[in-house]
Amino acid sequence: MKPRKVNIAVIGTGRMGSVHVANLVRSIPEANLVAICDIRLDVAQAVADDLGIERVVQDYHELLNDPEIEAVLIATSTNTHAMVIQDAAVAGKHIFCEKPLALDLKDIDSALAAVEKAKVKLQVGFNRRFDKSFQRVKQITTSGEIGRPCILRITNRDPELPAIEFLKVSGGMFVDMTIHDFDMARFQVGEVEEVYAIGSVLINQELLSFGDLDTTIITLKFANGAIGAIDNSRQSVYGYDQRLEVFCLNGTARAENEMEDTVVKGNHDGILASRVPFFFMQRYAPCYVEEVRQFIECVREDKPTPTTGEDGRAAVVLGQAAWKSYHENRPVKISEI
Amino acid sequence: MKPRKVNIAVIGTGRMGSVHVANLVRSIPEANLVAICDIRLDVAQAVADDLGIERVVQDYHELLNDPEIEAVLIATSTNTHAMVIQDAAVAGKHIFCEKPLALDLKDIDSALAAVEKAKVKLQVGFNRRFDKSFQRVKQITTSGEIGRPCILRITNRDPELPAIEFLKVSGGMFVDMTIHDFDMARFQVGEVEEVYAIGSVLINQELLSFGDLDTTIITLKFANGAIGAIDNSRQSVYGYDQRLEVFCLNGTARAENEMEDTVVKGNHDGILASRVPFFFMQRYAPCYVEEVRQFIECVREDKPTPTTGEDGRAAVVLGQAAWKSYHENRPVKISEI
Amino acid sequence: MKPRKVNIAVIGTGRMGSVHVANLVRSIPEANLVAICDIRLDVAQAVADDLGIERVVQDYHELLNDPEIEAVLIATSTNTHAMVIQDAAVAGKHIFCEKPLALDLKDIDSALAAVEKAKVKLQVGFNRRFDKSFQRVKQITTSGEIGRPCILRITNRDPELPAIEFLKVSGGMFVDMTIHDFDMARFQVGEVEEVYAIGSVLINQELLSFGDLDTTIITLKFANGAIGAIDNSRQSVYGYDQRLEVFCLNGTARAENEMEDTVVKGNHDGILASRVPFFFMQRYAPCYVEEVRQFIECVREDKPTPTTGEDGRAAVVLGQAAWKSYHENRPVKISEI
Amino acid sequence: MKPRKVNIAVIGTGRMGSVHVANLVRSIPEANLVAICDIRLDVAQAVADDLGIERVVQDYHELLNDPEIEAVLIATSTNTHAMVIQDAAVAGKHIFCEKPLALDLKDIDSALAAVEKAKVKLQVGFNRRFDKSFQRVKQITTSGEIGRPCILRITNRDPELPAIEFLKVSGGMFVDMTIHDFDMARFQVGEVEEVYAIGSVLINQELLSFGDLDTTIITLKFANGAIGAIDNSRQSVYGYDQRLEVFCLNGTARAENEMEDTVVKGNHDGILASRVPFFFMQRYAPCYVEEVRQFIECVREDKPTPTTGEDGRAAVVLGQAAWKSYHENRPVKISEI
Repeated sequence: MKPRKVNIAVIGTGRMGSVHVANLVRSIPEANLVAICDIRLDVAQAVADDLGIERVVQDYHELLNDPEIEAVLIATSTNTHAMVIQDAAVAGKHIFCEKPLALDLKDIDSALAAVEKAKVKLQVGFNRRFDKSFQRVKQITTSGEIGRPCILRITNRDPELPAIEFLKVSGGMFVDMTIHDFDMARFQVGEVEEVYAIGSVLINQELLSFGDLDTTIITLKFANGAIGAIDNSRQSVYGYDQRLEVFCLNGTARAENEMEDTVVKGNHDGILASRVPFFFMQRYAPCYVEEVRQFIECVREDKPTPTTGEDGRAAVVLGQAAWKSYHENRPVKISEI
Repeated sequence: MKPRKVNIAVIGTGRMGSVHVANLVRSIPEANLVAICDIRLDVAQAVADDLGIERVVQDYHELLNDPEIEAVLIATSTNTHAMVIQDAAVAGKHIFCEKPLALDLKDIDSALAAVEKAKVKLQVGFNRRFDKSFQRVKQITTSGEIGRPCILRITNRDPELPAIEFLKVSGGMFVDMTIHDFDMARFQVGEVEEVYAIGSVLINQELLSFGDLDTTIITLKFANGAIGAIDNSRQSVYGYDQRLEVFCLNGTARAENEMEDTVVKGNHDGILASRVPFFFMQRYAPCYVEEVRQFIECVREDKPTPTTGEDGRAAVVLGQAAWKSYHENRPVKISEI
Repeated sequence: MKPRKVNIAVIGTGRMGSVHVANLVRSIPEANLVAICDIRLDVAQAVADDLGIERVVQDYHELLNDPEIEAVLIATSTNTHAMVIQDAAVAGKHIFCEKPLALDLKDIDSALAAVEKAKVKLQVGFNRRFDKSFQRVKQITTSGEIGRPCILRITNRDPELPAIEFLKVSGGMFVDMTIHDFDMARFQVGEVEEVYAIGSVLINQELLSFGDLDTTIITLKFANGAIGAIDNSRQSVYGYDQRLEVFCLNGTARAENEMEDTVVKGNHDGILASRVPFFFMQRYAPCYVEEVRQFIECVREDKPTPTTGEDGRAAVVLGQAAWKSYHENRPVKISEI
Repeated sequence: MKPRKVNIAVIGTGRMGSVHVANLVRSIPEANLVAICDIRLDVAQAVADDLGIERVVQDYHELLNDPEIEAVLIATSTNTHAMVIQDAAVAGKHIFCEKPLALDLKDIDSALAAVEKAKVKLQVGFNRRFDKSFQRVKQITTSGEIGRPCILRITNRDPELPAIEFLKVSGGMFVDMTIHDFDMARFQVGEVEEVYAIGSVLINQELLSFGDLDTTIITLKFANGAIGAIDNSRQSVYGYDQRLEVFCLNGTARAENEMEDTVVKGNHDGILASRVPFFFMQRYAPCYVEEVRQFIECVREDKPTPTTGEDGRAAVVLGQAAWKSYHENRPVKISEI
C-alpha cells in the first residue's frame, strides 16, 4: 500500500529554502519533512529551531544515503543545482529543484541525463505557473472560447535592483529574471522559435562593468504564428509589477496586478488605490505552497510533474538566445543555441 | 406636411439657459432657435452675440404672442417657473421647463392644470434620466435578466457648497439637491410610498441659521417592496460623486463615476487615478443635449414627453416628505403630503 | 518567566470551530492547542484526526478543570455562549468567544459580570475588524488627513440564504447578519445614538412565517454628528459583497471588494472581471488567523483584547434596537434598549 | 487688425472630411467655413445640404484661387495629399492635412519644400496627440516627478479589419496603422533611432496575397536610451483598444481605455464592465475638434502648428523602417531610410 505521507528533505535553507521548509511544515500535510540541510549549519539550525524540525545536517550526501527519504527539495545556490540533482538522481530520490537548473547547458544536460537514467521525478520551481490568475488566463485561452492566441504581452518588473554581488553571478537579466517570463510564454502560448532582445542600463551604471542590463524588451515568435513581447525592469517603485495578456482572435484574457489591499482614497489629488505588493514572496506566496503540494502528489500517485526538466532547460535556452540576440543585435533562432 | 424644424425660444439665459441656447444652436439641427429672452437684457444680448442669435427680447410675453414660435424652453429662476408655464400654456406653446417646477405644490398644480387644459406638451429638465450609464442600468434591470430590484443605492455628492444666498431660496437640500435622486429612484425602481430622512450640518454652520442641511441620508420604501437609500453631501473634494446601484434578486447593476481622464500614475504612494469631474455641466453635458433633442422630437412627432409634469410634481412631493420626515424624525408616507 | 506558548483549548468544533483549530495548529506558533471539545464527540474526533490533535473531550468542564489550560476559544452554538463564558471565567480561563455573545442581554450581562469578577480576558470574534482593508480605511480616517467622518456606507450581502432551520434560531437578520456591520460602524466612526430599520422579504417567502427579513437597510445617527446607512441582503449571486465607505469632510476612504482572481476577459459582451469570493471563510481567512493571534498575544503579554465584551454587547444592543425600529416603524434611540 | 474668424475650406468630404466639416460648423466658432469641395460633387453636396453650407465646388483649384480663403483642410485620398499640399502652398493657403502625408518620401519632401518656400503653415492630422489622457501622461512624465522614461508600451488594436480594397492602397499595417503609434512614441518619449518589426497574418489569409500583416509587434530604441514596444492588431472584438504606458525611473503613467459607459453588471459569471468604444471617431471625437481648433488658432495668432510637416514625415519614415525590418528580419536604423 502506498505510504500516506511522502518523506522529504530540504537541501539549502536560505531565503527560498526556508520558505519551502515552512510551507512543508504548515501547509502540506501530505508531506513529512524529515530533515533539512545547509552547508551553513547554523543557518539550517535556526530554521529548524523556529519550526520545530528535529534533524539538521550539513552534508546533503547524508540525506541521500537515508533510505527513508523519498524526495529532496533543492534550494541551494544556482551553481550547485546540477551537481545536487545528479547526486540525488543517482541515489534514487525524486527531486524538486529551484530555477534555474544551471547557467550552463552542459551541466543541465548531465543532470537531466542522470534523472532520465534513474527514472526519478524532477520538478523545476517555476512558481508562477501555479498562480490562480495566470492559470485562469490559460484556461480561458485554451478553452477555445476566444479563439487562438495572437499576441502575448508580459510585464515583469522587480521593485528594486538586487544586490550587485548577486547580479554578478546571476546569469544576468535574461537568465535570472526573464527566465520566469520565458517559461510563462511557453506555458501560455507554446514553443518559441526566435527571440530578439534590446536593453539599456538606466537605473545603475555599475551594471555596465559586468555587462548586465536593467531595462529590457524581448520579442518572441512562436511556432504557432503568435508573437509576443516581454518588458522587464529592475526598479518599479509602485511595487512588483506582474501583468500578462494573451490577446486572441476573438477576445483577450489579462491578469492584472494584485494589490496590497482594496482601499481607495479620494481627495483633491484624485482617487488613490493602494500599491502593488513589493515582495515576490508575498505576491506569489500561495504558488510556493501549491507547486510543492503538487510535487508531493506526483510522487505519491506516480504522476508526471507539472514543470519538467525539459521546461527548466528550455527557459535557460531562451535566456541564452536573448543574450546572444542582444550582443549581436539581431533576431536569434532558438535552434542556434 | 410636418415642418422640418421646430421654432423654439429660450426664456431665461442664465447659467442653465445659456447652456441650452448653445446646445440648440450647435447640436440640435431639428430645432430652429428663433429668439432668446431674459429680464436682464444685457445678459441675453451677450449670449446672443456669442452665438449669433438675432432676436433678443426682455419680456417673454412678446415671444408667447409670436405665432411662429411653437415651443419655449424655460430656464428662469425657480420662483417664476409656474407662472411662465401657465402663460406659455395659455398661449399654446409646448414647454420644456427646468427643475424644480416650483417649491409650492399649489403653484405646480395650477401650472399643470393650465398645461392639461391647453393640451400642450410639458417636459421637466431631469437631465440625469438621459445619462447613458443610468439608462443602461435601467435597461438591464427591466430586461429581467437579473431579476426584480431589491435595493437601490444612490450616492449624489456636490463638489462644493453653493453660495449661501442661493441656498436660502433653493428649497433646501431635499428639494434642491435630492430632487434629482428622487426622480432617479422613480425612474429606476418605481413609485415611493414612504421616506425617512436624517441629516447633519457638518460643512458650514451658517446653514443652521436658515434650517438647511449639508449631509443627508434618505431611506425609501417602494410600492413594489424594494427599499432604497440615498446619501447626499454638499462637499466632495475628489469631484462630483454620482453613483447608483440597483441590486436585484439575481445580480446587480451599478453606474460608477466617470473620470476626468483614464490616466493612472504609479509611484511610491500607490496607483493614482484621476479625479471625478467637478462640474455638473461637464458630467452631464451630453444629457443636456439629449433631453432637449428628445423634447424637440416629441413636438415634431407629437409624442408624449419622457419626463412629464407629473414626474416634476412627484419629485417635489418626495422632497417635501423628506423635510417633514426630518423635522418630525419619523417615517412619512407620501400620501401625507 | 512568561511561558513561551499559550496553552489553549477549543470548545465547539463545528464550522467556525474547526477553522480556528486548523489555524491554531498551522498558523499561530505562539499557541499550543492542547485539546478540543464538542458534545458531538465524533465531530471533534474527525477534526482531531485530520490535524493530528491528541486530546479530544466531550464535556468542556473537563478542560476548564485542567490547570494547564490558560485559555479557551468558544465556538459552540450561540445559545450556549453565555453559559460557557461564565463557566470558563469562574475557572479562571481567558476567553475568546464567537459572535454573538448571546441573543438575550441578561445572559450577556451575567457573562460579562463573571468575566469582570474573574479578571480574565474576553475577546469577541468580530473578525472583520482584522481585515487589512477595513483597518487601512480606519487608519486613513483617524489620521486626520481627510477630515472628520460625515457619512458611513456599508454594503454587506451574503451570497445565499442560510438554511431556514439556522435562521429560525439566529436572532434574525439584524442580530445574526447586521451585527457585523454594527460593530464595524462603531469601529470606524464611533458610538451610535439612534437607528432606523426598514426591510422586506423578497428572496424566500418562508421567512415571513417566523418574522425574519432578507433585504434590509438601516440608517444610523452617530454621537459625533456623522450619519450612516447599512444595506444587507441574503442573496448576492455575484459573490459575498463586502464594501465600506467612510466619506469625510475632505475626502473619502473606501474598501472595495476582493476578487477571486485578477483576470479580466474581453469579448463581444464587454470586459468581464472575476467574481467576488462566495464564502465568508475565504474572504476573511486571514482575519480568522489574525484575531486569534492577537488574542494569544494579549494573553501572553497581559494586554487588553482588541474586541471586548462591551463591543460584543453593544452590537447586540444595536441589533435589538434595529428590530424594535422595524417593528414599530420609527427611529429608536439606543438608550431605549 | 486681425480678422475675427479664419476663412477656411475643406477639400475632400469623405469619412474624415465630413467629420471636419461638421466640427467646423458646430464646434469651432473661430473658423468660418466658406466652402467644401470633392471630386464627387454629389458627396460634397449631400454634406453641404446636411449642414447648411452654401458653397460647394468640384475642383479644388477654384478654392485655391479665391483670395478670401486663408486656409484649407485636406482630407482627400492619401495618394493626392502631396499634390494638393503643393498646390495650396503655392496659392499661399495655410494647410491642415490628414495623415499620412504620402506613402512616398519624395512626394513628402516636395510638398514640404513647397510649404517651406511659401512660408505657409502646415499641420498634420495626428489626432491622438490631442487626447486628454495621452496629454496628461506626457505632462506627468515631462514634469520630472517620476523620473526619466525607461519603457514605452503602446497597444493599438482596431476593432475589425478594414475593407481589403482599402488595405491594398493603404501603405500596409506599419504605415497605415502603426503610423499613429510612431507619432505617439515621438510625442511621448522622443526621437527613435532603430526599429525591429515582427508580424503575422492570423485574421484573414487574403492579406498574404498583397504582403500585408494583421498582427504586429514593433520594438523601438530611442535616442535617449529608453526602449519601447508597440503591439497592433486589426481585430479586437471587445472594442478599439487604445492603451499606453510610459514607465519611468521612479514611477509609471498609463492611459487606460475609455469605456462605452461606466456600468458594471454583477451576476453568476462575474463582474461585467461595458465594452471599449468600437469606432475610432467615437473614441477620438474631441481630438478631431481640438486639433482643428488649434490649427485655426495658429493661423489667427501666427503661431507654429503643434504637429508639423516634419512630424508627418518622421512617422512615415518609421513606417518604412518597420517594413524594411520586417522584410529583412533585422533591426533597422532610422538613418538607413
